[in-house]
Amino acid sequence: MEIDIQLVPSPPNSNILLNRAVVVIDVLRATSVMIHALSQGVLEIIPVSTVEEAFQMAKILQRDTILLGGERESKKIQGFDLGNSPREYIAERVRGKKLILTTTNGTKAFHLVSSGKEILVGSFFNIGAIAQRCLKLKRDILIFPSGDEGKFSLEDTICGGMLIELITKRGGKAIVLTDASHCAQILYRKFKDNLLKAFRLSSHGKELIDRGFGEDLAYCAQIDITSLVPHFREGGIKISD
Amino acid sequence: MEIDIQLVPSPPNSNILLNRAVVVIDVLRATSVMIHALSQGVLEIIPVSTVEEAFQMAKILQRDTILLGGERESKKIQGFDLGNSPREYIAERVRGKKLILTTTNGTKAFHLVSSGKEILVGSFFNIGAIAQRCLKLKRDILIFPSGDEGKFSLEDTICGGMLIELITKRGGKAIVLTDASHCAQILYRKFKDNLLKAFRLSSHGKELIDRGFGEDLAYCAQIDITSLVPHFREGGIKISD
Repeated sequence: MEIDIQLVPSPPNSNILLNRAVVVIDVLRATSVMIHALSQGVLEIIPVSTVEEAFQMAKILQRDTILLGGERESKKIQGFDLGNSPREYIAERVRGKKLILTTTNGTKAFHLVSSGKEILVGSFFNIGAIAQRCLKLKRDILIFPSGDEGKFSLEDTICGGMLIELITKRGGKAIVLTDASHCAQILYRKFKDNLLKAFRLSSHGKELIDRGFGEDLAYCAQIDITSLVPHFREGGIKISD
Repeated sequence: MEIDIQLVPSPPNSNILLNRAVVVIDVLRATSVMIHALSQGVLEIIPVSTVEEAFQMAKILQRDTILLGGERESKKIQGFDLGNSPREYIAERVRGKKLILTTTNGTKAFHLVSSGKEILVGSFFNIGAIAQRCLKLKRDILIFPSGDEGKFSLEDTICGGMLIELITKRGGKAIVLTDASHCAQILYRKFKDNLLKAFRLSSHGKELIDRGFGEDLAYCAQIDITSLVPHFREGGIKISD
């Protein structure tokens, strides 16, 4: 079983994807929002690439059954119900709804890897459960950090590195790592006792602090607050069994 | 002054390149070969992408003034004078000649970054001199590891990380690092006392050992054996002043 991680979020070769489980990660903040929202009772999440698509979809569906969420330049979009802070997605606000979500990096990533055999949604919130699921699947894995506007993202890669650490600890020598996986694992080990330090060092972390979302950094650094393993299938993200 | 490093060798945006100095790195082994060959008296190196181009060019030029060098699957190409081990490129063999070189990753990298403002050739052999040159240039830098068949390469990124370490040590707070640069610097610090360990961990290093080129790993791990700073300009690589 090989674990690879794509350090830069360009479209992967679809032949490679066909037989792989893909884990999409956007710690700050899209996949953290998704996992949090589902844990608080959201029924399904539809990740869309543009604001226009989100409004379009809202028109088709019954307005009181859905929520529009996401960000541009980290901020809530005009006319949307919610922004991109996981803390906003609490049961009283979201239970029983379908969430249409559009963010700068994270929601686009799902469309880039849509030909993956199985597409899982990971962040520090559910990293232990994701590792267990990957071990169960017994197939090659591609970790796909959503990146920072097409570039390498430190925090996403560190989260990928933690996933690699957990899988190799339990899977032993049967797990083969690529150079990129070694890189992610080393980065994780460097920051494992202080994830927040890495978030504050990262360009996207700095940007969020500047824009007034500093509290989200500490919130998104929480590990294993849920054991949900959401998956992306036929355009939607739901909790898998 | 910003230092970025492109962790995966895809074509960079040429707008970004226009104002940057680019440092191309292929530790195992193309840029190590180039620097070594120039230090032993090669007059110029023409990096070409294919074996056919190399033979074509050899036809145009006077055969006794040139050498054909390079590899496919790490091995010397049939009809070529030299392979891709820096140890082969010694004065008695190469002095006064022009070298036409084709390798799997390194020679292609130069054509990907050819619109860079200044394109330098780096490896551990000349890393100190490259750092000094970068500081003198006072412009943004893109480090371009040649990678491993389009993928991230551990040893090239570690070499880039050493360059970042040297520049930031001398350049102080005026040097701005991207997430990718932080990543490379952390990788370098992890392996700085044992570069060979990193080479042996890397997929390309393992491949070279399997193919009988294990000695090249220790050879290419030598630091600052020359102060030459070669540059790529108008299709050729020469020593710059």
